[in-house]
Amino acid sequence: MEKAAGSPSVGGSYPQKNAEILSSQYGINLFLAGLLLTFAWAVHAVGISKSHLLSYLITLMLIQLLWMLWYLCRSCTQRRLIRDKDTHAGARWLKCGITLFAVITLILDSFKIGYYIDFSNCLSPTEGIFPVTHAVHTILQVYFLWCHAKDVIQSFKTLERFGVIHSVFTNLLLWTNGVLTESKHQLNEHKERLITLGFGNITIVLDDHAPQCNCTTTTLCSVFSQGIYYLYPFNIEYHILASTMLYVLWKNIGRKVEHHQQHKTPFKFHGITVGMIFGLIVLTSTIAIVVVYLIQIGRSKIKSELALTMFYLHAIFVLALMCTAGIVALLIYRLEDRSLDNSKNPARKLDAELLVGTAAGSWLLSWGSILAIICAQAHPKYTWYNLPYSVLVIIEKYIQNLFIIESIHREQEKVNDDIKTLRIVTISRGSTLSLTPSYKEIYNGRATRDNGEVPCLFKGSICRRENGGGGGAKEETSQENSLVMHSASDFSFYSSSSVTNSKRRILKNIAAFLFLCNLSLWIPPAFGCRPEYDNGLEEIVFGFEPWIIVVNLAMPFSIFYRMHSAASLFEVNCKT
Amino acid sequence: MEKAAGSPSVGGSYPQKNAEILSSQYGINLFLAGLLLTFAWAVHAVGISKSHLLSYLITLMLIQLLWMLWYLCRSCTQRRLIRDKDTHAGARWLKCGITLFAVITLILDSFKIGYYIDFSNCLSPTEGIFPVTHAVHTILQVYFLWCHAKDVIQSFKTLERFGVIHSVFTNLLLWTNGVLTESKHQLNEHKERLITLGFGNITIVLDDHAPQCNCTTTTLCSVFSQGIYYLYPFNIEYHILASTMLYVLWKNIGRKVEHHQQHKTPFKFHGITVGMIFGLIVLTSTIAIVVVYLIQIGRSKIKSELALTMFYLHAIFVLALMCTAGIVALLIYRLEDRSLDNSKNPARKLDAELLVGTAAGSWLLSWGSILAIICAQAHPKYTWYNLPYSVLVIIEKYIQNLFIIESIHREQEKVNDDIKTLRIVTISRGSTLSLTPSYKEIYNGRATRDNGEVPCLFKGSICRRENGGGGGAKEETSQENSLVMHSASDFSFYSSSSVTNSKRRILKNIAAFLFLCNLSLWIPPAFGCRPEYDNGLEEIVFGFEPWIIVVNLAMPFSIFYRMHSAASLFEVNCKT
Repeated sequence: MEKAAGSPSVGGSYPQKNAEILSSQYGINLFLAGLLLTFAWAVHAVGISKSHLLSYLITLMLIQLLWMLWYLCRSCTQRRLIRDKDTHAGARWLKCGITLFAVITLILDSFKIGYYIDFSNCLSPTEGIFPVTHAVHTILQVYFLWCHAKDVIQSFKTLERFGVIHSVFTNLLLWTNGVLTESKHQLNEHKERLITLGFGNITIVLDDHAPQCNCTTTTLCSVFSQGIYYLYPFNIEYHILASTMLYVLWKNIGRKVEHHQQHKTPFKFHGITVGMIFGLIVLTSTIAIVVVYLIQIGRSKIKSELALTMFYLHAIFVLALMCTAGIVALLIYRLEDRSLDNSKNPARKLDAELLVGTAAGSWLLSWGSILAIICAQAHPKYTWYNLPYSVLVIIEKYIQNLFIIESIHREQEKVNDDIKTLRIVTISRGSTLSLTPSYKEIYNGRATRDNGEVPCLFKGSICRRENGGGGGAKEETSQENSLVMHSASDFSFYSSSSVTNSKRRILKNIAAFLFLCNLSLWIPPAFGCRPEYDNGLEEIVFGFEPWIIVVNLAMPFSIFYRMHSAASLFEVNCKT
Repeated sequence: MEKAAGSPSVGGSYPQKNAEILSSQYGINLFLAGLLLTFAWAVHAVGISKSHLLSYLITLMLIQLLWMLWYLCRSCTQRRLIRDKDTHAGARWLKCGITLFAVITLILDSFKIGYYIDFSNCLSPTEGIFPVTHAVHTILQVYFLWCHAKDVIQSFKTLERFGVIHSVFTNLLLWTNGVLTESKHQLNEHKERLITLGFGNITIVLDDHAPQCNCTTTTLCSVFSQGIYYLYPFNIEYHILASTMLYVLWKNIGRKVEHHQQHKTPFKFHGITVGMIFGLIVLTSTIAIVVVYLIQIGRSKIKSELALTMFYLHAIFVLALMCTAGIVALLIYRLEDRSLDNSKNPARKLDAELLVGTAAGSWLLSWGSILAIICAQAHPKYTWYNLPYSVLVIIEKYIQNLFIIESIHREQEKVNDDIKTLRIVTISRGSTLSLTPSYKEIYNGRATRDNGEVPCLFKGSICRRENGGGGGAKEETSQENSLVMHSASDFSFYSSSSVTNSKRRILKNIAAFLFLCNLSLWIPPAFGCRPEYDNGLEEIVFGFEPWIIVVNLAMPFSIFYRMHSAASLFEVNCKT
C-alpha cells in the first residue's frame, strides 16, 4: 500500500482537490439557503419575516467571527506555520480602499442602531442585534484582511478552507442583503415619482416603506432613515470587495508559491497631470449632473425629460472619450509588442473574470434598452438618446476590458531590461550556454504557455527544460541564430528609450483618466440616478414587473463593475 | 523594438489572451441579446413576436453553418495545419451520445415541419424555416464534432476563436429556447391540472397553447403537437452537450499539448453485473413510477396525493441507496491513497465545474422545499415526505460530486505499476541515480502540485527539477532512505493485488449502478413529473408566480446535472 508515500502534504493524506470541492459545495449550499431566505423575504412569503433572515445572517457572522479569532490566535502563537505569501494578493491600495468602505459601513451601522432605538417599539430585537454584530464583524474582518490577505495557508488545510469559504459566502450574502434593501428603496422612490407624474395604470404598492409606530426622538429620525440610503452603496462595495479578497485567500490555500521578488510600485501623481485634470473634470461634472438629475426627476414631465436628456448627453460624451482613450491605449500596445505573463496568479485571474462577468450585467441592460427602442411604437424625442448611450456602454466596456486585461497580463518592463542585459552579457562571453535558450523561451513569448505552467524563476534558481517532441535540437539552433541577430538590435534600444518613455506616459495618463471616469460612472447608479427606470420606454415594451426584475438583477453587477474596473485601473497605473 | 522576437506564435503577433477576451466578449453579447429576445417573447413584450426570436436564431445558425463549412474545407485542403489532438476531449462515447440525441432532434424537426404544414394558415413562415435550418445545422454540427472535437487549433487563431465561440453560444441559445418552450408546456399542463382540481384563487391563463386556426390534416395534428413535447428533452440535452464540446474546443485553441500516450479504455460489461442489475431495477421501477404518476396526477385530490407519496417514497429509497454507494466508494478511495493528476485538461476542468454549478440548480429547489416545509402553516401528511427527499437530494449530489471529481482526477493505475517496477530496477542496480528522486516526487503525490504545472512525462523524456529552496540536498537524502524502505514493501504488493482487484471491481460496480440511477433520475423531471409544482406547499409559501420563476430557472440545470453526471460516471466506469 502506498498510503504513507502518497501523502507528503502537511495535514493528512486527504487530497487537496477533494478538500476544495468539499468546502466549495458547503459554501454554495450556505449561500443558496440564504439566497432563498432573502428571496422569500423579498416576495413576502408566508411565515418568513425579516427577522428570520437577519437571524440567519447573524449566525453566519458569529461563526465567521469565531473562526477568524481562532485563526488570528493560531497564527500569533505559531508564526512559523504561515511562511508563504502571495505577493499579488491583497495590494496595499486595495486594503486602504476596503478600510475606507468599512469606516463608512461602521457609520451606517451606528445609524441603524440609532434608527432601531428610535423605533424600538415596533421593530424586532434582531434589527438591533444585527448592526451591533455587523459592526464587530466589520472591525475584525478588516483587521484580518490587513494581516492575512496575502497568506498562503499550508496547514490544517481542510478546516481553513471551510472557514475561508464560509467567510466568502457570508460576505456575499451580506452583499445580497444590502443590494436588495437598496433596490427596494430605489423602487419605492421610483413608484413615488410615478405617483407624482400621475401614472394610474400601474398598481403601485410601496414596500417596507416605514415602520408602523412613531419615532421616539423626532429630530434624528429622518436623518437616520434618509442617511442610511446614502451610505448603503459603500456598504455594498465593502462586502463584495471583502468577498473577492477572501476568495483569493481560499484559492491560495495549499498552493506552492515561487518566491518572486516583487517590484514595489507606489502610486505617483507625477506625470499623469493631463489624465488627472480631464478625469477630475468628468468627476465634478458627473456629480453636478447627478445632483440636478435627482432634484429634477419626477417633479413634472418636462423636468423629467430635461433631466434625462442632460444625463444621456453627458454620458454619451464621457463614454465616447473613454472609448477613444481605450482605443489609443490598445494601439500603443500593438506598436510595442511585449509578451504576456500567463503564470498562475489567482488574484489576477479573478480580476479578469470579474471584469467580463460583471460587465455582462450592464450589457444585459443595454441590450434591453436597444431592443425596447427598436420595438417601441411611440418614440418621444429624448428616448432616442438612449440608443447611442446603450451602444456606447457596450462598446466602452468591451474596449476597457481588453485594455485592463492586457495591462495586468503584461510583463513588467524591468524584467525586460534585465533580459536584454543578460543577453548582451551572454553574447559578449561568446558562449552558447545551454541555459540561454530557456531564458529566451521564457521571456520572448514562449513562456506565455497556455498550460499555466510557471516558468522557472529568473533569479535564484537555474532551470532546464527539454521538449518532449523530437524537434528540440533544431529549435535550439534556430534560437541561437536569432539570439545573435537580436543582440545587434538591442544596442539601438537605448536610443529609442525616449519613445518608450513617452508611450509609457501616455498609457499612464489614459489609465488615470479611465480610473477617474469609472469612479464617476459609479456614482449615478449607486446613488439612485437610474434612467433605466425613469426613461419609461423599456417598462412599456417589456412590462413594468419584468423590466424591474431585470434591472434589479443586473444593476448590482453593473455598479460593481465600475468600482472593480476603477480598482484595476489604479493597479494598471501603478504598474505601467 | 521586440516585435519580431515577441511573436513566436503562428498567425501574427496579437496576444493569445486578447483574442480570448475579444471572442468571449463577442459571444457573451450575442448570447445576452438572444436571451433578452427570448425573455421579451416569454413576457409577451409589446412589438416582439416569436418570429423575431426565430429569425435571430436562424441567422445565428446560418452564420455557424458558413463557418463550419469554411473550417471543414480548410482542414481538408490543409491537413498539416491541425496536427495536435487533445486526447481527453470528445471521447467516443460522448460522440455516440450526441449522435443519438441528434437523431431524435431530427425527428423533432420533422414533426415541427409537419406541424407547420398542418397549421400553415396561421403560422408565420419563420416557424417553417426554423426546423429546416435546424435540421441542416444539426447534421453538419454532428459531423463537425465527430471529425474535429479533438482538434487543437494552432493557426489563424482569432478567426477560429470567433467561429467556435459563436457556435458555443448559438447552441446555448437554442438550449435556452428549447428549455423555455418545454417550461411553458409544463406550466400549461400544471395549470390545466389546477383547473381540474378546482383551484379558483390563482389567475390561470394558458400561454401559447394552440394555434388560432384549424388543422388541415386532422389525423396527424394531435400526433405532431403531442409528440413534440416528448422529444424536447432530447433536443435540450443535444444542445447543451454540443455546447460543452465546442467550449472545450475553444479552450484548446492555441494550447501546447503534451503528447500523452492515452490508454484506450473501452467499456466492458464484464464484472459489473451486480451494479448493472441493481441499476436496471431502479431504471425500470422509475419508468413505472413516472407512468403511474403522469396518469394519476391532477385527476383528483386523493389520486394526486397518492401519486406524490409514491414518487417521494421511491425517490427517497433510490437516493438513500445512491448515498450509501457513494460513501462506500469514497471510503475505498481513502483506503488506497493514490495521487491526483492535476495536469491541465480543459475537458476535465469543465466537467468538474459543470457538476458543481448545475447541482446548485437542484440545491436551490431543495432549499426552497425545506424552507417551505419549515414555514408552512398547514402540513398535509404527504408533504412531510418532501423533507427527507429534499435533504437527500442535497446530500446525494454532494457525495456524488466528490466521488466523480476524485475519480476523474485519479491517475491511471498502469502508471503506478510502472513506477513500482522502475523502483525495483533502480534499487537492484544499487545505484542512486539523480533521476530517482524526481520520479518519486512526481508519482508520489508531489506531482499533484497546485500550480497546475505538468510534470515531465514518464515516457519519452527525462526531466530534472531542482528546488529553489535550500533544503534540496537534505530532502533528497531522506527520500533515498524512504526509497530503500519502500522497496521492501513493494514486493508484498503483488500478493495484495487481489485485494486491489476486488476494490476495483466494487468501484466499477458502484460507478455502473450510479450511472443507471442518474439516467433514471433524469427521466422524471425531463418528462414532466415535477412534484415541485404538484406538491403545492412551496406555491402557498412563496406565492404562485415567484415559485414558478424559481422552478423554471433552476430546473433546466437540475435536469442537465443528471445527464452530465451519468456521462461522467460512464467515463469513471471506463477508467477504473
